[in-house]
Amino acid sequence: MKYLDNDPVKLNGPKDAVVIIDQTRLPKETVFLELKKLEEMYDAIKTLSVRGAPCIGVFAGYCMAVLSLEQRGADHDGFIKAMKENADRLNLSRPTAVNLSWALSRQIRKIESMTDSGPEDMSRALFEEAERIHEEDIRMCLSISENGLSLLKNGDGLLTHCNAGALATTRYGTGLGPILLGKERGYEFRVYSDETRPLLQGARLTAYELAKAGVDVTVICDNMANICMSEGRIDAVLVGCDRVASNGDTANKIGTSGLAVLAKHHGIPFYVLGPYSTIDMNCDSGKDIKIEQRDPEEISTMWYEKPLTVEGAKYYNPAFDVTDHDLITAIITDKGILYPPFKDSIKKVMS
Amino acid sequence: MKYLDNDPVKLNGPKDAVVIIDQTRLPKETVFLELKKLEEMYDAIKTLSVRGAPCIGVFAGYCMAVLSLEQRGADHDGFIKAMKENADRLNLSRPTAVNLSWALSRQIRKIESMTDSGPEDMSRALFEEAERIHEEDIRMCLSISENGLSLLKNGDGLLTHCNAGALATTRYGTGLGPILLGKERGYEFRVYSDETRPLLQGARLTAYELAKAGVDVTVICDNMANICMSEGRIDAVLVGCDRVASNGDTANKIGTSGLAVLAKHHGIPFYVLGPYSTIDMNCDSGKDIKIEQRDPEEISTMWYEKPLTVEGAKYYNPAFDVTDHDLITAIITDKGILYPPFKDSIKKVMS
Repeated sequence: MKYLDNDPVKLNGPKDAVVIIDQTRLPKETVFLELKKLEEMYDAIKTLSVRGAPCIGVFAGYCMAVLSLEQRGADHDGFIKAMKENADRLNLSRPTAVNLSWALSRQIRKIESMTDSGPEDMSRALFEEAERIHEEDIRMCLSISENGLSLLKNGDGLLTHCNAGALATTRYGTGLGPILLGKERGYEFRVYSDETRPLLQGARLTAYELAKAGVDVTVICDNMANICMSEGRIDAVLVGCDRVASNGDTANKIGTSGLAVLAKHHGIPFYVLGPYSTIDMNCDSGKDIKIEQRDPEEISTMWYEKPLTVEGAKYYNPAFDVTDHDLITAIITDKGILYPPFKDSIKKVMS
Repeated sequence: MKYLDNDPVKLNGPKDAVVIIDQTRLPKETVFLELKKLEEMYDAIKTLSVRGAPCIGVFAGYCMAVLSLEQRGADHDGFIKAMKENADRLNLSRPTAVNLSWALSRQIRKIESMTDSGPEDMSRALFEEAERIHEEDIRMCLSISENGLSLLKNGDGLLTHCNAGALATTRYGTGLGPILLGKERGYEFRVYSDETRPLLQGARLTAYELAKAGVDVTVICDNMANICMSEGRIDAVLVGCDRVASNGDTANKIGTSGLAVLAKHHGIPFYVLGPYSTIDMNCDSGKDIKIEQRDPEEISTMWYEKPLTVEGAKYYNPAFDVTDHDLITAIITDKGILYPPFKDSIKKVMS
């Protein structure tokens, strides 16, 4: 496995620590953390130093590998017992993160299958499996990125929302994948990044990633998307996704659905990008997706020096919204590009 | 002229000072300033303690009246000369504010017409004219508010953007007028106030005004308007306007045009409210309206403790946008409610 300088998660040289970019200190400082101890790893997830579902999964795989170095003197059963305790502890850091528990279980299954092996072999297997998880994630992103890039032209103006880049995955990303891959292949895009209130991931993370990669990036407030479209600055909209229903309705960061309405009004293609595994066949439509309501302080005070509004005002702070399938031009996955009618194209790719 | 507690501009009891709410300290503190001296008045406009074109006009009228008290010992010509100097100085505080120079000229014209009067009479006339300007503004707002209220139902969910309330005018406001007048008349509305990035007038001023008036107000980030509409929370959108072209295209705070597209998509009426004097017959369409570009720091740092984005990111920060006339349900003025085709209804009301 070949690591790149800007991979947000990887092993260090001696392969005895996991190295991450501390995302809480972006964009002000680019600080790498070398983690060797369980509690450091737990805290890194808990405090969002590492974030983004796929990225957390890859991180958890490496954590299990590095933590196994402490158990090389144990016997077979002691090794497995200790690693299960490590996994249980890490799993508590973000209980709702599917990729976290998935990667931890995958590592535990790996060593449980090695009934005749000693700690040295099991530890080596954990390192190999961690790199495999990482490689699979990169391959998945690359595949999404290539599919997405095939729909874009050199010089296009692109609008994106929130952060669906390498920082949330492991390389390329999903929504930003075609942009970052395109840059490697000599494409020049003009990218408009919504700042993405309330948590400002577009301003803090997407602009950081794209600027570091040398991509032309312009930060706008979310309410400026329509003027950018009507002035002809935008040729396509690219967004990630948190969950896709079997009819194509797509849950993603709050604000995504409004962009889709604007894009349709202006006749601009609206592309959703994400791994095939994001499609949830148990979910018939967006109506089945429950929207998380978050803390009012994210709107009223979090980023500000003083309270913004009068006492007595209320807040409505949905974290996600659902984009109607009939506003989506295509859903771009690692298994191909899905077009409407999505009920059919999704059924076909899932069968 | 009867003053109300929450009038943003008025005279004090002895009628020797202009009283304003210091809008720079909202929403944290409600502080009233009593201004008697020219330089205090100049600073109040310059530093945005008093803001909003109609409000500044009324303020300037009162300033001229109060400043005339210092000239009661002067002779006729000395009085006029001194008042012209006061007007010239005040006019420099915000050179592009049309209502400011309009109100100052009106006061000067008033005393210039009194060729046989002494300073006492001229000073009294300035007080009377100031109250007349104030009353005209209140009547204009009341008229817009009544016209707007006629289109709403008790219990409606309303969405508004930026601040088009009493703080920007003198009572009721334009965009917020039907809501504040409705409250007086026993209507209960549920109001959603866009925070309105980058300058956050919706969070800072609109939420403040509405909460003070006892109106049910919920602050949302700008990108949450679409989910509120699709969840059925919004029955109408009410916005103010900075300039209306003769075909109905309307320039208003950045973000307004996007709301209009969303409202049309959801079949929700989109109402523009403003004085008849905002219609510019010299302007054929929105294409003739030049959009002011503002400082990138409003996006990157102004409200935040630290820079939000990486160095090297660019910014695009238009202050206004233009809403296509075909997205507007009605333009509500003090001379009546204008419906499409706006080219005809506007021509009729302007002739």
